[in-house]
Amino acid sequence: METAYSVQQIQSSYIREILAAASDKNVISLAGGLPDEKTFPIHLMKPAIEALTAMTDVFQYGATIGYEPLIVHLTQTYNLPETHRVMTCTGSQQGLDLIARAYVNPNDTVAMEAPCYLGAMQVFGLAQANLVTVSQDESGPDINELELCFKTTSPKMFYAVPDFHNPTGVCWSLEKRNQVATLCIKYNVVLIEDAPYRELRFSGEPLPLVSDFCPDHSIVLRSLSKIASPGLRFGTVSGKQSYLEPLLKVKQGADLHSSTPIQAIILGLLQHAEFPKHLENIRAIYRSRYDTIFRAVQAYLPDECKITPTEGGMFVWVTLPECDTYKLANELLANKVAVVPSPVFYPTSAEPPSAIRLNFTNADPEDLVTAIQRISQVLKNTPY
Amino acid sequence: METAYSVQQIQSSYIREILAAASDKNVISLAGGLPDEKTFPIHLMKPAIEALTAMTDVFQYGATIGYEPLIVHLTQTYNLPETHRVMTCTGSQQGLDLIARAYVNPNDTVAMEAPCYLGAMQVFGLAQANLVTVSQDESGPDINELELCFKTTSPKMFYAVPDFHNPTGVCWSLEKRNQVATLCIKYNVVLIEDAPYRELRFSGEPLPLVSDFCPDHSIVLRSLSKIASPGLRFGTVSGKQSYLEPLLKVKQGADLHSSTPIQAIILGLLQHAEFPKHLENIRAIYRSRYDTIFRAVQAYLPDECKITPTEGGMFVWVTLPECDTYKLANELLANKVAVVPSPVFYPTSAEPPSAIRLNFTNADPEDLVTAIQRISQVLKNTPY
Repeated sequence: METAYSVQQIQSSYIREILAAASDKNVISLAGGLPDEKTFPIHLMKPAIEALTAMTDVFQYGATIGYEPLIVHLTQTYNLPETHRVMTCTGSQQGLDLIARAYVNPNDTVAMEAPCYLGAMQVFGLAQANLVTVSQDESGPDINELELCFKTTSPKMFYAVPDFHNPTGVCWSLEKRNQVATLCIKYNVVLIEDAPYRELRFSGEPLPLVSDFCPDHSIVLRSLSKIASPGLRFGTVSGKQSYLEPLLKVKQGADLHSSTPIQAIILGLLQHAEFPKHLENIRAIYRSRYDTIFRAVQAYLPDECKITPTEGGMFVWVTLPECDTYKLANELLANKVAVVPSPVFYPTSAEPPSAIRLNFTNADPEDLVTAIQRISQVLKNTPY
Repeated sequence: METAYSVQQIQSSYIREILAAASDKNVISLAGGLPDEKTFPIHLMKPAIEALTAMTDVFQYGATIGYEPLIVHLTQTYNLPETHRVMTCTGSQQGLDLIARAYVNPNDTVAMEAPCYLGAMQVFGLAQANLVTVSQDESGPDINELELCFKTTSPKMFYAVPDFHNPTGVCWSLEKRNQVATLCIKYNVVLIEDAPYRELRFSGEPLPLVSDFCPDHSIVLRSLSKIASPGLRFGTVSGKQSYLEPLLKVKQGADLHSSTPIQAIILGLLQHAEFPKHLENIRAIYRSRYDTIFRAVQAYLPDECKITPTEGGMFVWVTLPECDTYKLANELLANKVAVVPSPVFYPTSAEPPSAIRLNFTNADPEDLVTAIQRISQVLKNTPY
């Protein structure tokens, strides 16, 4: 049976291949985007898990928008205005997919930063969007480039990860947030603000959502995968009711609704008195891992390798002297360390700089140092 | 933000409207497709639910195809040949959506029986398929019509619910199963066999899957929503590995994978020694409800109303003297009983016969009788 055109253009995921190779126990993987499973707050979910067996209603069909008590809780927590709604999804990845399916026709233009989250490129690729990219500096997207992009290509939406960007770790400055929101309003572009790493700020001051400056021109995606558990598959989408209604229509056809017992567990977790303390704990753990990898990069990698500092999230981005980063990544894998080369995060049309993404949340501190030492050895011994 | 073309054509769901109206406690609803929540085997899931808190691995990211121990169990239970695979989904509804997304281009032809499951029409509608329908008799699709359809329209796939069809309750005869499989092979049409009600056979002899006669020309969708719990959102897709690979690609973009703790609960349930007994119990309960509604229809409705007998599932189909069934359904609702009128189950182009679908699994026996008496009153008092 011939596949649909939209699927024919999906390339085999390099990340999937490298993750498969990295499952070798002797390989230290900095390639994935996995949180440390030792941080999962299973003990805080335990009361809600054990309460499930007394809750018949969560085992019946539920509303497409989500489990009512959780929706009430999230509406309050997110401080949503009267005109806005929140819906629950099977991970924020599903929220992004619903947005693409509900709004993007083939050849519709979607703007994003380059580099960009691979999963977003997959979703917009499936929707056969015309992807246009804007470059990024250490404070967010290049504003002049973004305005030119909005002016000349009239994108339907601008997809962005303003907090601790994947793959670069960049966190947009307050000024940039304001500027981007202003441009979205001026050019009537809807901001798709993907915020999976937002709660993982381990230093510096929290900043408002970009959407706070353009609440009626934005949709916000949130995830519990990085701060609670990715295996639960839980995320949310919020925005104007009129923006959410088409997503609900698509979701009804896609899966009717997400698992309700999972939503009951999430509600129990979010309402647990110790959940804020849990957040502090994982931030402390990841700050320490970040410090370790940052110092190791400074200590062991050649001076031409530049690490982009970050104040949160799960990744650091290391730019390298010009080289074939795929070849480098394969050579690193042969030397028992897995990383993701930069081209993976760019549309195929782009000419990406030489860089690698390093995850620092899923390896122990000693392994982080060993991994950087191995990278150092390969970089020193092989002329790229 | 303008929605995608595919979404613009989705009509507001009449079923959603009627279900909302039916939530009035004085209304007896035979409109939904809900199992009786008193049948949910929560006590059989309890050990697996309580074991979750000791299983860190199910809270981490998992494989797109599903939770490995469950995949192993299902591969054995389904007795899949070496060349076939099974994947897990957020309800079999998601499986159907993945099939449509992976294989159906706009204007590709998809064949189905008429009447047909509404959720399938939604999914193929979203994929902008060209739907062609084949009429159904008491033993399955009209074979001559089906062959003519395959010959003249070359559909990519034939979607069907051979066991206790929604909405008619029809169960295909053995001969029909064989004939349909032969036609699928002859005309190279892939059978999408949707089997959510298959385990709800409460009389007669079990029959093989249609797919058993054409294993390399079919994809099978199974669900635990009717025999365990719909709120969990669990279903499976199985078929040739080459058929499943594109679905996995789409699912990776759609939500990465379905909730793993839910899959661990499902595995515990399926392996529970008392699960077969649970199946017997619900079959006995639903047989008794069916007997009740069948006798009530015979006893109270005018002779011109014909009920289609069934040996399982959740629905009976009652054909009526020609009338405006939407008007009738509204009048019934005003008289505190909710049913679904026949046109809902036909593409808009069709000219549906006058009929109503009655669900018998979610109302108590006394309510079933009262509901039929109310329908009888309305039919007698109002000239349609």
